[in-house]
Amino acid sequence: NHVIVCGYGRNGKQAVHKLEAYDKDFVVIEMSEDIVSRQLEEGMLFIEGNAVEDEMLLQAGIARAGTLICALPSDADNLFIVLSARQMNSNLKIISRATEDTSFQKLKLAGADNVILPDKIGGDHMANLVVTPDLVEFLDNLAVSGSGDSINVEQIPFEKVCSNGEEKAIKELDIRKKTGCSVIGYKSPEGNYIVNPEPSLVVKKDSKLILIGRPEQIEKLKNQYDV
Amino acid sequence: NHVIVCGYGRNGKQAVHKLEAYDKDFVVIEMSEDIVSRQLEEGMLFIEGNAVEDEMLLQAGIARAGTLICALPSDADNLFIVLSARQMNSNLKIISRATEDTSFQKLKLAGADNVILPDKIGGDHMANLVVTPDLVEFLDNLAVSGSGDSINVEQIPFEKVCSNGEEKAIKELDIRKKTGCSVIGYKSPEGNYIVNPEPSLVVKKDSKLILIGRPEQIEKLKNQYDV
Ligand SMILES: [Ca+2]
Ligand SMILES: [Ca+2]
Repeated sequence: NHVIVCGYGRNGKQAVHKLEAYDKDFVVIEMSEDIVSRQLEEGMLFIEGNAVEDEMLLQAGIARAGTLICALPSDADNLFIVLSARQMNSNLKIISRATEDTSFQKLKLAGADNVILPDKIGGDHMANLVVTPDLVEFLDNLAVSGSGDSINVEQIPFEKVCSNGEEKAIKELDIRKKTGCSVIGYKSPEGNYIVNPEPSLVVKKDSKLILIGRPEQIEKLKNQYDV
Repeated sequence: NHVIVCGYGRNGKQAVHKLEAYDKDFVVIEMSEDIVSRQLEEGMLFIEGNAVEDEMLLQAGIARAGTLICALPSDADNLFIVLSARQMNSNLKIISRATEDTSFQKLKLAGADNVILPDKIGGDHMANLVVTPDLVEFLDNLAVSGSGDSINVEQIPFEKVCSNGEEKAIKELDIRKKTGCSVIGYKSPEGNYIVNPEPSLVVKKDSKLILIGRPEQIEKLKNQYDV
């Protein structure tokens, strides 16, 4: 159930940093011998080779992997890998970067679940700093889940929030009183999101609540609900 | 008080799309004659030339501009422009892209207010899809302010929320009852953000509230407070 990262350029490197911070198991496929030997010295799991070759994906354990991140600079290479990987493991979650707009649809067709266009995100981000600076600053600085000690947004699954298995309305749960955190979202069992759900909404089995709070409130939340 | 965008590559283009959508006045400086003549035909304000030349910035009205977006592919070019622009207009908000990590600090030193590293944001994003997929999906799909009809996050300044100028506690404002929206943030008069502020927090002059809601709730909010 590990993550395979193809390419240790600027994109892949940043992704790997984050995976490490969250203690995820991963292996990186990278062509540069220099980079690979340096990272192996630091105890990281690197394989030297070109991820476009099926052999490399097999060596990285594609059959039992949970996620593949394609972060090569060439859209054509990423497309090739996405297509190969999808054939080797139909349950794999595949995330690919793309440079060109026009590659988005192709990568989706080839089997990618998510396609990230860094230049597009970057351009959006620059414009957001002009049009809604305060909101962008606020949302950007929200720290999301994980193991850090400055978390602002966290999710709790149904079975933690209603530990006896009984479905209850949000207001009956009294989460704000118990922890200080506020419910800002609900993910239904079908996977649909409701922003700012009504207090009367009944929390269903297999759903999730999304909450916001200051770090000390999130800490309380985690203790209270054993997240 | 217009926006100057240097470079109409993938980054600049996306920024321009967003500025247009929010009806911001802008002018683009772009070197490619082809691109410029095509955009001029579409009625967009483009100037042909190299933004590294001071003359081009003057022509784009740098002295009376509100914001400069440097979206050239070369970090050295962006650095050059940031430095020139900062000398020409000390009040200008300067936003620059950067490719290399090491350029971040240099661009800041040269006078950039914000530096955006698209590859870093992209890499982060890919990893977030692995480590906190639900939260990322939820936050990514929040539509922020502006003129659209599917907005989820909006800000209200003090003078709108306390229209008689009297400072009041959040709970006294009864915003949730009146509009359905929930307060998720507070920006103090000094510019500091408080996430998930207490209901007892007194909303001060020159502060802002940040609220979350479903589109119909945000619509109510805008009508109620004349935003
Ligand atoms: Ca670790
Ligand atoms: Ca317009």
